[in-house]
Amino acid sequence: MLDDLKQAVCHANRRLVAEGLVTLTWGNVSGISEDRRHMVIKPSGVPYEQLTPDQMVVTNLQGDVLESGLRPSSDTPTHLELYRRFEGIGGIVHTHSRFATVYAQARRPIPCTGTTHADHFDGPIPVTRPLTQDQVANDYEHETGRAIVECLSQQANDPLRLPAVLVAGHAPFTWGTTPAKALDNAVALEAVAEMALHLQRLTGDPIELEPYVLAKHQARKHGPDAYYGQPT
Amino acid sequence: MLDDLKQAVCHANRRLVAEGLVTLTWGNVSGISEDRRHMVIKPSGVPYEQLTPDQMVVTNLQGDVLESGLRPSSDTPTHLELYRRFEGIGGIVHTHSRFATVYAQARRPIPCTGTTHADHFDGPIPVTRPLTQDQVANDYEHETGRAIVECLSQQANDPLRLPAVLVAGHAPFTWGTTPAKALDNAVALEAVAEMALHLQRLTGDPIELEPYVLAKHQARKHGPDAYYGQPT
Amino acid sequence: MLDDLKQAVCHANRRLVAEGLVTLTWGNVSGISEDRRHMVIKPSGVPYEQLTPDQMVVTNLQGDVLESGLRPSSDTPTHLELYRRFEGIGGIVHTHSRFATVYAQARRPIPCTGTTHADHFDGPIPVTRPLTQDQVANDYEHETGRAIVECLSQQANDPLRLPAVLVAGHAPFTWGTTPAKALDNAVALEAVAEMALHLQRLTGDPIELEPYVLAKHQARKHGPDAYYGQPT
Amino acid sequence: MLDDLKQAVCHANRRLVAEGLVTLTWGNVSGISEDRRHMVIKPSGVPYEQLTPDQMVVTNLQGDVLESGLRPSSDTPTHLELYRRFEGIGGIVHTHSRFATVYAQARRPIPCTGTTHADHFDGPIPVTRPLTQDQVANDYEHETGRAIVECLSQQANDPLRLPAVLVAGHAPFTWGTTPAKALDNAVALEAVAEMALHLQRLTGDPIELEPYVLAKHQARKHGPDAYYGQPT
Repeated sequence: MLDDLKQAVCHANRRLVAEGLVTLTWGNVSGISEDRRHMVIKPSGVPYEQLTPDQMVVTNLQGDVLESGLRPSSDTPTHLELYRRFEGIGGIVHTHSRFATVYAQARRPIPCTGTTHADHFDGPIPVTRPLTQDQVANDYEHETGRAIVECLSQQANDPLRLPAVLVAGHAPFTWGTTPAKALDNAVALEAVAEMALHLQRLTGDPIELEPYVLAKHQARKHGPDAYYGQPT
Repeated sequence: MLDDLKQAVCHANRRLVAEGLVTLTWGNVSGISEDRRHMVIKPSGVPYEQLTPDQMVVTNLQGDVLESGLRPSSDTPTHLELYRRFEGIGGIVHTHSRFATVYAQARRPIPCTGTTHADHFDGPIPVTRPLTQDQVANDYEHETGRAIVECLSQQANDPLRLPAVLVAGHAPFTWGTTPAKALDNAVALEAVAEMALHLQRLTGDPIELEPYVLAKHQARKHGPDAYYGQPT
Repeated sequence: MLDDLKQAVCHANRRLVAEGLVTLTWGNVSGISEDRRHMVIKPSGVPYEQLTPDQMVVTNLQGDVLESGLRPSSDTPTHLELYRRFEGIGGIVHTHSRFATVYAQARRPIPCTGTTHADHFDGPIPVTRPLTQDQVANDYEHETGRAIVECLSQQANDPLRLPAVLVAGHAPFTWGTTPAKALDNAVALEAVAEMALHLQRLTGDPIELEPYVLAKHQARKHGPDAYYGQPT
Repeated sequence: MLDDLKQAVCHANRRLVAEGLVTLTWGNVSGISEDRRHMVIKPSGVPYEQLTPDQMVVTNLQGDVLESGLRPSSDTPTHLELYRRFEGIGGIVHTHSRFATVYAQARRPIPCTGTTHADHFDGPIPVTRPLTQDQVANDYEHETGRAIVECLSQQANDPLRLPAVLVAGHAPFTWGTTPAKALDNAVALEAVAEMALHLQRLTGDPIELEPYVLAKHQARKHGPDAYYGQPT
């Protein structure tokens, strides 16, 4: 059951290491089945180099574990909330990648300062509101998902056009139509975070990209007349 | 047809990864045939590790695709404009390498602060003027090429003595007599950008290299009596 | 004798290289036997790639060398002082990892600015008092251990909840229940040091994590009802 | 002739790549024969991965090439001046390693801010005076060597206690009793330069290590009663 998805999720989790996005076990990737009834996610605290597809944990969208003897990632309720609320997404990535995490800890959006950003994200990467003490105590990971959904809803009509968020004091989440594309967005996010940080230290205030250049790069890569990449 | 050039262009594209100059598919290398009638360039959006010489796309200098079933890099019109206007160049590299891109986003020239810079570039690396909304809307990649040519013409008599430019808000382009030498210049550019950034943060204002040391390093490596490297 | 411990200590020393924590021979890992009568530690000045388990040096807790023809790490008296005073610890790691060492040289604690820190360390990483000229002259490495013990005692009830310290002007030490876990903490320390440094440069003053988020992350990973990782 | 030295010099040149100290062909290592009559040095502009011991260039101390059909490094006159004036040294390394070069370009000494520095260098790393236009025009590489010798003579009684210098506007040179030890010092120099730069950005002014800690670290590693490393 769900063999292809387990393979894709396992592969994306292992790619976290190859892309330099994780330290120790600080990151996880999940995917959702086409019928959106099952999620496949990394088991908690297992080193990436040992991961095999059959270790991936299968849950339903309420979080009940259906397969695998292993405990799912502790961030499972956050992933589930995003899948329930963002209908177009097929994969989610959570990392503590260095520079994106610095912005999450600074509780500052990553400004759109160049075309690298514009190719992947339709505007600044927003930061969630902090959770209250009650939210942290009572349903921490689920509340984290709620804060992400609330934050995105205020910023974008389509979560796939702004496929990243910074959880305040914590770290980034990214998503995409597949686990592989969610991972590409995590890679892109870390790169733009690093460049934005260096830029802000060079110039003081960030220099925002012209809105019409942002729109052009979104259109040529993601619009109906996109001409970046090969026709699919 | 153009087998050697396809080999050279493919190899240089794969070297982008080995040199740490690219993330995802953010970069491309092209080369021009000796008779300057054909350009060979990376196909758009194809991962580097899968590239083979026969996938390289051949165009004429008007941009018509003559060979390969694949779509050429979306930056093709920029490359073509440079080949048409800079007669001595044989290869072009475009990357979003981190530190050079930071300077492009900051819209500040990279100052010549040491002999590393002087060995490769005869002065500061200039930044193009921003494109207007019309230019972005109507012929974006071609206009980018025009802005590069205009910028270089104001700074250098010979584009091979200043083989790099920063496109404002975007990223760098470099060139050389061959694709391999264009790539060496991309490597050098990223190194001098990184050092210039660290230097500006250490000292506030950059410290410019003495002009006579710059001239000496240009002469010993590129002048008629060059004594760097092996005789060719 | 102590074959398993020698194996574990040798493996952890070699992992210092794989994790990017050491340059040249600037780091060492030790472990203590279950009966707490013997310590196993890296030999001094031997390159990591040549290390074999039988080269590991065995001492008693007074520092007498019992096995191996090689001289133990020059930091041996520091390790021994920690084993004698911190009863729960089973492994110690010393490195000069870049960013943690910068904080040690700055003689500033690493603030707790995010959940990455909170997952591993129950509060800011403290800095030892400087040693006096007499302490350096007479029993340098032993006095270093004493300064660490004194510093930790003022900050934490349980050294395993705050398993890291910065020795002023020198570099970090970390520990854990095993050599492998001490190494994980050294990896985590370097990551949080790097992020804290970038953060302080972005925001000026550091932004502290909410205490209730720190407490939550400590509890979900290390508390009696921990749900991070797999049940052991 | 000089087979062992050619082997050692070739190996050290290739190690420049493994240690991350060079970009393109920006670095070279040399060694001197025991009778101090011959120098062996890297050929100019040859990629490191292709280097073989028989390609190493042999010169006498006046710089006449005695063996190898290849041209020696363009920095040969600088190396020779150091061998003629610093009698105890057996190997020299020149790199453009990133952070040490930033200090050379900033024309600021690298302060001694911690024990990592103190283990290798007996005080701050000095910067040479700038060369005059005449010196650059007439005998550039030889004058560079003279400026290094002059600078070191003012700072240290024994060049082996302070085995590094920053050439103003250019890059570092290091040395040691053998090519391998000169390379270790180049590795150490880059590490301390990186940490000093981060430190100065964190604290504003650098925090100098206590002189008695510097003296202790020099003594325990290099003094007559050294106890770091294995007895030789």
